[in-house]
Amino acid sequence: MLQHPMERLRRQAPLVHCITNYVTVNDVANMLLACGASPVMADAPEEAGTFSGSGCLYLNLGTLNRRTVDAMYLAGRANAERGRPILLDPVGVGATDFRMQTARALLRDLPIAAVRGNASEIRALADMGGQVGGVDASAADAVTDETVGRAAAFACALSARLGTVVSFSGPIDIIADRGAAYAVRNGVARMPRITGSGCMLSGVVAALIAAHPEQVLEATVTAYAAMGLCGEIAEAALREGEGTGSFRARMIDAMSLLDDAQLERGRRVQRVI
Amino acid sequence: MLQHPMERLRRQAPLVHCITNYVTVNDVANMLLACGASPVMADAPEEAGTFSGSGCLYLNLGTLNRRTVDAMYLAGRANAERGRPILLDPVGVGATDFRMQTARALLRDLPIAAVRGNASEIRALADMGGQVGGVDASAADAVTDETVGRAAAFACALSARLGTVVSFSGPIDIIADRGAAYAVRNGVARMPRITGSGCMLSGVVAALIAAHPEQVLEATVTAYAAMGLCGEIAEAALREGEGTGSFRARMIDAMSLLDDAQLERGRRVQRVI
Amino acid sequence: MLQHPMERLRRQAPLVHCITNYVTVNDVANMLLACGASPVMADAPEEAGTFSGSGCLYLNLGTLNRRTVDAMYLAGRANAERGRPILLDPVGVGATDFRMQTARALLRDLPIAAVRGNASEIRALADMGGQVGGVDASAADAVTDETVGRAAAFACALSARLGTVVSFSGPIDIIADRGAAYAVRNGVARMPRITGSGCMLSGVVAALIAAHPEQVLEATVTAYAAMGLCGEIAEAALREGEGTGSFRARMIDAMSLLDDAQLERGRRVQRVI
Repeated sequence: MLQHPMERLRRQAPLVHCITNYVTVNDVANMLLACGASPVMADAPEEAGTFSGSGCLYLNLGTLNRRTVDAMYLAGRANAERGRPILLDPVGVGATDFRMQTARALLRDLPIAAVRGNASEIRALADMGGQVGGVDASAADAVTDETVGRAAAFACALSARLGTVVSFSGPIDIIADRGAAYAVRNGVARMPRITGSGCMLSGVVAALIAAHPEQVLEATVTAYAAMGLCGEIAEAALREGEGTGSFRARMIDAMSLLDDAQLERGRRVQRVI
Repeated sequence: MLQHPMERLRRQAPLVHCITNYVTVNDVANMLLACGASPVMADAPEEAGTFSGSGCLYLNLGTLNRRTVDAMYLAGRANAERGRPILLDPVGVGATDFRMQTARALLRDLPIAAVRGNASEIRALADMGGQVGGVDASAADAVTDETVGRAAAFACALSARLGTVVSFSGPIDIIADRGAAYAVRNGVARMPRITGSGCMLSGVVAALIAAHPEQVLEATVTAYAAMGLCGEIAEAALREGEGTGSFRARMIDAMSLLDDAQLERGRRVQRVI
Repeated sequence: MLQHPMERLRRQAPLVHCITNYVTVNDVANMLLACGASPVMADAPEEAGTFSGSGCLYLNLGTLNRRTVDAMYLAGRANAERGRPILLDPVGVGATDFRMQTARALLRDLPIAAVRGNASEIRALADMGGQVGGVDASAADAVTDETVGRAAAFACALSARLGTVVSFSGPIDIIADRGAAYAVRNGVARMPRITGSGCMLSGVVAALIAAHPEQVLEATVTAYAAMGLCGEIAEAALREGEGTGSFRARMIDAMSLLDDAQLERGRRVQRVI
């Protein structure tokens, strides 16, 4: 795993350029600041391709429209030319043709380094190309201790086909490239009950990739563990009468205070393949 | 009134498709998740008409523009064809011609099931068609125990003219269809001091309508009582030095924990007509 | 300085029309409500020029695009015709040509009353016109007790060139017109670690200018002191385990409770020139 990832992230404060949805954009910006990155959320075609400097590009399909798709291409090509990593979060990709076509086109036209979604989104991506290396895409659903091996094999096969690191969140998170797969068991059930927990996680993945561009798989695993751990810390901090509204703020609190010693003690990461 | 509305809402977890403003969209999504619904906030014309499944469509004019008006029509027609209810929150309808024309057109062209706003917005809607059944629209303003009967008569008359359930929030909330009207006395003065309290209430109305499409009036009354009660709970939970920032989170906290027993004990609903 | 600024602001509740970014718009609206103003966030060209009544227009370049630039012009001209003040926050102006060109055009074409940004944004504005009255723009960077005089001279010179009140935030804030300059020493280091602290501050500046349109310089100084003081109050209120997520809510809490006596006791304002 990575050495002192939080310290390195905060020292580098890499730029993470987000073209993302307007529902959770504020939470994503605050979570990026909390983990140590420097967020920029510009999505106008007039300027999306002109942000200079190192970092990572984070594309999120949450409320995509024609204008932001144009901006994703302009920013994507600019980042590709400069050799910077790109993360894709295909929010709701199975819900409409527009999202599916956009996700397919972005994966075809840009050198995406990592794709991150929930199980049903990743399954929809897999289904769009037929069977994945002989593994049924339903292997992504509700991963348990019994099915973790099958889910990991699915993720490796999909990673090989898409040419990116593949990961999906759930009760057990799966993160894989073509040759290795990890399971992360951090997190709490309240996380999907707030909007943006997935979008914020993708932001943290982008931040850690930006700080470790040669270790995309390890950076992604670390982000899942860090975010899940922040969920656990936030859950433990809830007082009588506090629910999802306070939980959201406490997740950002926890990330803004998270250090490497805490992360090392708390992460529950297993190499599966 | 409805039987076990919160339990039913959480069991069904109906889709609420929101085409809403970018100011309060995050709060609306979190409030919808807190009450048990499944929010989708897509507003691109490319996909607004293609969300499948049951549920309710929630149209909010808060930051409308040409593109989102197109999306409202596409989604509205798709929902109308499938017999799904549509809720309209005509935010700021009296402030500009663009809003007034859009509200009038949506009410004319789509089978809106319920219109919900604050008193001045509902009054502006009423004024656009001349006098309402002999009742002065100023009856909607600052409803008190003395004026509640007149306000209820106004709401019934407007409901008859628009062909929708009509409701408006204030110190006393009024909810009516053509033949019946209710007053709800839940809520606290701090609610309108945060942005989005009306938008969130409309979200909860849409969620309860989605779960009770045959009882739009009762679902709307229940939503007002639930939201007002959450305001009361949030107010009581405020500690020394806490103001509107914490109040916002605590309202969502309260909704995420609200159950039917609590709602039944706390609601202050009166049948007026 | 202003007499009873918070009381006057809350009594007048002036309209502040914001055409701003979608990242922090909710925080800006809540901060405006907390300080006593009446926010309107409409940014559609169809209606941006038609909001009536007194108040202040707040233009923020955070996520500008072609459509919102059109709206800024329409609203700007309508406000100029009615003699209402306009505040410009040139977010990220040094980052892309699109932002620089937009900022330059708005400053040329509209009677901007005040420009407010962080030091690097104000420096970028200054650099676009060559040297400022013999003062190096780097005087704006990281103002300390040693450099405060030079920074104030720079701000006065830039104010004279742009014909607006100029201010920038930092460890020491500088606020100036052509003939006078103030330093404000309120605030804490956690403020720039949340997104929107600058945007919210600009909102409070706009609110106080709206309530004191004849005293733009004094209103701006007061806003910096009030916002910095709210940061100090929020910092002091943080409990064990609370970080940037809770800090954001507590800043809004503090503003919603701030009164003139507290502001007078807590403000640290120095006349420099």
